[in-house]
Amino acid sequence: MWQRRTDLALEAHELWRQNVGERPGVTTREQDAFGYGVTVVEVSENAAARALGKPMGTYITLDLKPYWSHTEDALERAATAVGAELRSLIPGAKTALVVGLGNDAMTPDAIGPQVAEHVLVTRHLMRDEAFASLTAVSVLVPGVLGRTGMEAAETIRGAVRMVHPDVLIAVDALASRSLERVCTTVQLSDTGIVPGSGVGNRRRALNRATLGIPVIAVGVPTVVDAATLALDILEEAGAESVDPAALKGHGGVMVTPRDIDAQIRELSRVVGYGIDLALQPLSYAELCALMG
Amino acid sequence: MWQRRTDLALEAHELWRQNVGERPGVTTREQDAFGYGVTVVEVSENAAARALGKPMGTYITLDLKPYWSHTEDALERAATAVGAELRSLIPGAKTALVVGLGNDAMTPDAIGPQVAEHVLVTRHLMRDEAFASLTAVSVLVPGVLGRTGMEAAETIRGAVRMVHPDVLIAVDALASRSLERVCTTVQLSDTGIVPGSGVGNRRRALNRATLGIPVIAVGVPTVVDAATLALDILEEAGAESVDPAALKGHGGVMVTPRDIDAQIRELSRVVGYGIDLALQPLSYAELCALMG
Amino acid sequence: MWQRRTDLALEAHELWRQNVGERPGVTTREQDAFGYGVTVVEVSENAAARALGKPMGTYITLDLKPYWSHTEDALERAATAVGAELRSLIPGAKTALVVGLGNDAMTPDAIGPQVAEHVLVTRHLMRDEAFASLTAVSVLVPGVLGRTGMEAAETIRGAVRMVHPDVLIAVDALASRSLERVCTTVQLSDTGIVPGSGVGNRRRALNRATLGIPVIAVGVPTVVDAATLALDILEEAGAESVDPAALKGHGGVMVTPRDIDAQIRELSRVVGYGIDLALQPLSYAELCALMG
Amino acid sequence: MWQRRTDLALEAHELWRQNVGERPGVTTREQDAFGYGVTVVEVSENAAARALGKPMGTYITLDLKPYWSHTEDALERAATAVGAELRSLIPGAKTALVVGLGNDAMTPDAIGPQVAEHVLVTRHLMRDEAFASLTAVSVLVPGVLGRTGMEAAETIRGAVRMVHPDVLIAVDALASRSLERVCTTVQLSDTGIVPGSGVGNRRRALNRATLGIPVIAVGVPTVVDAATLALDILEEAGAESVDPAALKGHGGVMVTPRDIDAQIRELSRVVGYGIDLALQPLSYAELCALMG
Repeated sequence: MWQRRTDLALEAHELWRQNVGERPGVTTREQDAFGYGVTVVEVSENAAARALGKPMGTYITLDLKPYWSHTEDALERAATAVGAELRSLIPGAKTALVVGLGNDAMTPDAIGPQVAEHVLVTRHLMRDEAFASLTAVSVLVPGVLGRTGMEAAETIRGAVRMVHPDVLIAVDALASRSLERVCTTVQLSDTGIVPGSGVGNRRRALNRATLGIPVIAVGVPTVVDAATLALDILEEAGAESVDPAALKGHGGVMVTPRDIDAQIRELSRVVGYGIDLALQPLSYAELCALMG
Repeated sequence: MWQRRTDLALEAHELWRQNVGERPGVTTREQDAFGYGVTVVEVSENAAARALGKPMGTYITLDLKPYWSHTEDALERAATAVGAELRSLIPGAKTALVVGLGNDAMTPDAIGPQVAEHVLVTRHLMRDEAFASLTAVSVLVPGVLGRTGMEAAETIRGAVRMVHPDVLIAVDALASRSLERVCTTVQLSDTGIVPGSGVGNRRRALNRATLGIPVIAVGVPTVVDAATLALDILEEAGAESVDPAALKGHGGVMVTPRDIDAQIRELSRVVGYGIDLALQPLSYAELCALMG
Repeated sequence: MWQRRTDLALEAHELWRQNVGERPGVTTREQDAFGYGVTVVEVSENAAARALGKPMGTYITLDLKPYWSHTEDALERAATAVGAELRSLIPGAKTALVVGLGNDAMTPDAIGPQVAEHVLVTRHLMRDEAFASLTAVSVLVPGVLGRTGMEAAETIRGAVRMVHPDVLIAVDALASRSLERVCTTVQLSDTGIVPGSGVGNRRRALNRATLGIPVIAVGVPTVVDAATLALDILEEAGAESVDPAALKGHGGVMVTPRDIDAQIRELSRVVGYGIDLALQPLSYAELCALMG
Repeated sequence: MWQRRTDLALEAHELWRQNVGERPGVTTREQDAFGYGVTVVEVSENAAARALGKPMGTYITLDLKPYWSHTEDALERAATAVGAELRSLIPGAKTALVVGLGNDAMTPDAIGPQVAEHVLVTRHLMRDEAFASLTAVSVLVPGVLGRTGMEAAETIRGAVRMVHPDVLIAVDALASRSLERVCTTVQLSDTGIVPGSGVGNRRRALNRATLGIPVIAVGVPTVVDAATLALDILEEAGAESVDPAALKGHGGVMVTPRDIDAQIRELSRVVGYGIDLALQPLSYAELCALMG
């Protein structure tokens, strides 16, 4: 009953624990970052990785629920928290390429392109000594296959060859098993990414093995699988067990909250500013002045 | 178990029939319009109206599922079908006010404002003899309370007093109980409308009693209540009965399909052109030439 | 040679002075507001009003050129300056209606609708005691005749009757004679406004005489008449006098700077926040926290 | 007096002829394409190329003024005319990369990105036999340096290496010397392009020499240099000669018509469909059905 669709390592691990119990090769710890809860899942063995369906590596999940209470400093603290956790995964980069994956014409898939709007682009300013202390950042929004005719991974590979960044940061929309995590959670991992799909496709994977540089994935759950949603709501309501096979008819139908437009718009700024604070030696106030 | 949230008279009646059986004061008939299925529900008695939670009147539901196969003439046939059914509810108007309700900044709520973009506006051309055969149409997009400080119903009442239309056509987003009906169904009714809510609120109701003119409602389901969705998916999957009271925690969370942007964009044209064909003595080809 | 097209009283007066000399019934004074230059033109006699082609009243022009240097506090100071000057024209209003005139689908004409996005809407919150100290503000974006079939003035009159505001503030795009004033100038006046045209049209004028409440006009020059632009550039370049009649062919062709999109976007926030600071007892920091 | 800023070979040649007379190495001919006027300028000698400031090659200029009368078949004829002339420059390509240059956040600079929206993307469908007769087309919108940190030419070079197209078609905004040509003219040439500037910059030039494939430039004038505009308006008005040096103060200020948004939106479809008809074995009706 636990084969639910989720792109979050945290949820995959919760499901595992619920159904099978603890297993070797996975550890979790909880911590706090500027008032936001953080869970770190480390997958350190191959068998555990296969069982969870996630590559080995570190998965950091921030719980940004408190952001939505919109206290006066909510944006500053949320961006600072994302920045601090992200920085822990990036090994001292002097140049970075930030990639906004997804389709900017489909709201829940537009988080990548919208985050890109909030990334401080600096690579073209590097000849100016005034900017010498900054990390050289460039930004790419490769679009989706149906609108470009090119795999995002191809376009990214071409850009990496040109720009030679020390690190690639790729932002993408994820599926969660729970409506409550949609637009309240950010997952950071050092495991790379397969644009456009959770299904492994070696040719399209972007990671240290295929690109020769660290690839940091920044994922934001923006959709929920309709059948998974049904199972979870029913379980909470105390329903007797249901045969998930019977739900096949709804497989693949992804739903998203009604007010996703506003949520994506706000969260894009949180994540974009977080990336800026992770990459640049700037205070939050300095960043705001630069971004207008 | 049937207190599911739906704004569609067709679904309310289905639920009733499923749970209680046929009842007097409601009749339904099915017909075809240019290849699209049409169901007409007539609620002719007060008791039936109270039972269904819908005012007495005629509810015409078009099933536009075939539109999404995108055959070459899909748009023409769908708009023509909407136009023909809508015309059956409008008693020979020479002037009309079309109102696009909802929030244009929230995709599933933007169907009203987006339909308004496809309505042929003619009221200001009426002094020109070349347009003498046309119906005088004006368009209002009143916005939502949180962004204007004014009830949509107030703004509409003000406009009706100025424009003195023979008929008011109000387009709004609805909630369906079924994901399958989202963006595949259009409901037309002659019962008026209460902007912003299914809950009756006399001060805000727009209908013949409050405005003195016929008020035709055009509704498009674009969201589904999460708990209702769960119940329906589980029932299809053969789950034993669940206590709906246990689902309260999810009450009011509305979800929408991931690709709602494109669906709203396309359906807005279908509905807008349908309204044009209902109001104006134009062929589909003439309309397309005018709309560009 | 001075029949150049301008909606700015300041420019009309400059042209007059240049060509005819000082005249009775018009006084000007210059002052400073938070680092921005302010010119106040008072037209106090009917003959002077006719000569300038502007109604009698007070015209306050802010020179916001320094804003575009984007120093860290540029937005705060510019919004505060607009707010302070605007407040000097508003006689202690407890309720206000802010109207964004123009066409949001045409960039240089979209300043009104875009300013409306930055106005703090409060009228619907007034029953809540927490907001008792605020001015009750509602916002209307009436659209343009070609897209609604209704004169903006009609729609506004309808809303004024419903809302009964103490003051109407109407924001609109203007034509300047000089490219340098485009998006660097804001004109505030207590003379009312004629939506959509500088040409007087009694039926459509919005002012104290027609509405019974003060009507404050907020104008931002966003376009320049092509022929006027040519004359000015040539004069600066030392050209001999040209017969303006010969320029008729270009009459009415309005041009705008290439980067008008970004200019309108930024200036809308300056003006919108200025209106908020004029109407509400809020500090700039409190306003920013509320507007997100 | 003829050093006016223009990106159109036709205008450069007109200015030359006006001021200096006919010269060897340049020929022009006029023809008709589906009711639209076409002027072909051939620059066949190096000395002529230097004199005109344009590389040797063929420049085809279509006059689309009649399009704006919006007769019922205006779009079909205009797209067909662009398609036919463009096809004459493309040597039987089986694969093509179409590039939309410019900044989609600045209306007059957005013609490239907006044309890209109307290009039929097919490269990813080529494994399907149903599409075997089509040309494999991919689309790239590289963005601008300030928002990506990468030169458009770099990004394009990377994509060309990946996709190996038979031909590159690059769409960009141009400056005209005349307001009348703005959004009424399309220039096609086989000479390649230097993204972002008329100034030669060898590293950034995209042409057969640097890429090894034909590079077709599609240019649409959307802006006019303010000083050039002034000179032209004044000359028409019969002004005595003016020293152009005196206009330096306005050098580089580009202006655009007030209603540029709608003009760009419409013309993008004309040009995009024209590219589709040049590349694909489709009728106009078939194309419309595919593009929706």
